[in-house]
Amino acid sequence: MSDQEAPLRNGVEHKIFEVLPFVDDDYGGVIVEMKTPMDTKTFVAALRDSFEQWRLQGKKGVWLNLPLSHVNLVEPAVKEGFRYHHAEPTYLMLVYWIPEAESTIPLNASHRVRVGAVVLNHNKEEKYGSLCGSGIWKIPTGVVDEGEEIFAAAIREVKEETGIDTEFLEILAFCQTHESFFAKSDLFFVCLLRPTSFDIQKQDLEIEAAQWMRFEDSASQPITHKNDLFKDIHHICSMKMEKSYSGFSKKPITTFFDDKLGYLYLNKQEDMEKPSS
Amino acid sequence: MSDQEAPLRNGVEHKIFEVLPFVDDDYGGVIVEMKTPMDTKTFVAALRDSFEQWRLQGKKGVWLNLPLSHVNLVEPAVKEGFRYHHAEPTYLMLVYWIPEAESTIPLNASHRVRVGAVVLNHNKEEKYGSLCGSGIWKIPTGVVDEGEEIFAAAIREVKEETGIDTEFLEILAFCQTHESFFAKSDLFFVCLLRPTSFDIQKQDLEIEAAQWMRFEDSASQPITHKNDLFKDIHHICSMKMEKSYSGFSKKPITTFFDDKLGYLYLNKQEDMEKPSS
Repeated sequence: MSDQEAPLRNGVEHKIFEVLPFVDDDYGGVIVEMKTPMDTKTFVAALRDSFEQWRLQGKKGVWLNLPLSHVNLVEPAVKEGFRYHHAEPTYLMLVYWIPEAESTIPLNASHRVRVGAVVLNHNKEEKYGSLCGSGIWKIPTGVVDEGEEIFAAAIREVKEETGIDTEFLEILAFCQTHESFFAKSDLFFVCLLRPTSFDIQKQDLEIEAAQWMRFEDSASQPITHKNDLFKDIHHICSMKMEKSYSGFSKKPITTFFDDKLGYLYLNKQEDMEKPSS
Repeated sequence: MSDQEAPLRNGVEHKIFEVLPFVDDDYGGVIVEMKTPMDTKTFVAALRDSFEQWRLQGKKGVWLNLPLSHVNLVEPAVKEGFRYHHAEPTYLMLVYWIPEAESTIPLNASHRVRVGAVVLNHNKEEKYGSLCGSGIWKIPTGVVDEGEEIFAAAIREVKEETGIDTEFLEILAFCQTHESFFAKSDLFFVCLLRPTSFDIQKQDLEIEAAQWMRFEDSASQPITHKNDLFKDIHHICSMKMEKSYSGFSKKPITTFFDDKLGYLYLNKQEDMEKPSS
């Protein structure tokens, strides 16, 4: 603490404490990022002083990022009114909404995203499947990582499970379900890929076996008939082999307001004729 | 603590502590749900005793759900080796992986999901836009809630922003971007809707105005030309009005292994002719 005379603000004596390290966000709020260790008493004092400053500045949301190493500050932060927002293995993000008006704090991520990959080889007669524990041959599937493109995840999963290199063609369909993982929802994208290498080398320990399968053999497994999604995927693949189905292909774009790079998935319909209008 | 004689297990004297309340999960692990308040000392003792039991039973992942009211147990849990997994406003989920083998703990939700709604009225000449702060007319957009269907979110957003009732037709395209929200990725689904009511009543406070707009007027805004995504959406809408574009329509299904209800979005192609194979 400074030993200079405490200044008067609004006529009230005001002590100078260490203010927490923060940066402004783009929405009228601040993000506090704790970097050096701090004991709880110093933290609470600095937090209260910081709040006084933020209120005067008309700040809205206060984000508090506490790395695992600052776990001692979680309880005091909650007691000062913070609520959990989201967490990752190495940090917990808490948030406090200052204004009287309704909070515009964005919701946490709500969906897990997965891909399933159908790989049709150059004869367009075969696709490959992999054997999971239950004796069922299934297409390679996996979770899309944070920051990973959907098409890249499909290519990666096929490589990991079978050693085959592929090229992304289309998203054939996708499926949304709920409560797949605690309260979170799930989006499952069925991707069509073209192989650029053909020798299967099973790599993933969770897979019992991997092989090229005749499309008909894969479709004739009992599970395919018992399960809506399997049945629909096979039906779509049949139509695709007859060139009578259009999925969504990818196109790099820049986005709405922030000019970020992204991918748009849309029906490019190269082989569909435009009717005259 | 029980006052009966401590039993011998593996020849070692074994104290009986209160074991934490838990249920088995479907993947060889357990979920601990704290319901009654507990002081940190009792918690740590019960946790260590529980771990001894879980190790003997060959349990894998240990999930620890700490409601906000149990924030006092966050620090001792982390000191016992737990890591954060995810958090929602009212609870923090921690996890501990017991086996030597690599963890198969599922990744946290990675994507926020949003919808944008294009509503074409019966003349197929107009769409409506709403005026956001920057003087730009835009289609209604919003975040899909956890557990909410994508098509239902589009209908809800249109109703909230304009009072118009609509029916879902198709997903025209979707866009994936990254780091839209801390490290999380973003999926934006462009939905086509058909209005079933026509009188606009602006409801959302964040919207300045709402009106039906001629499709051409919406497309001629300068931002449409400057922005890839706007341009593509308008191009797709033009093709759709000429009946020369197929998006993905919805179909209720049951999913892979767990027979959950969900929706599959796929190209139904009612008005596409099948070529003879």
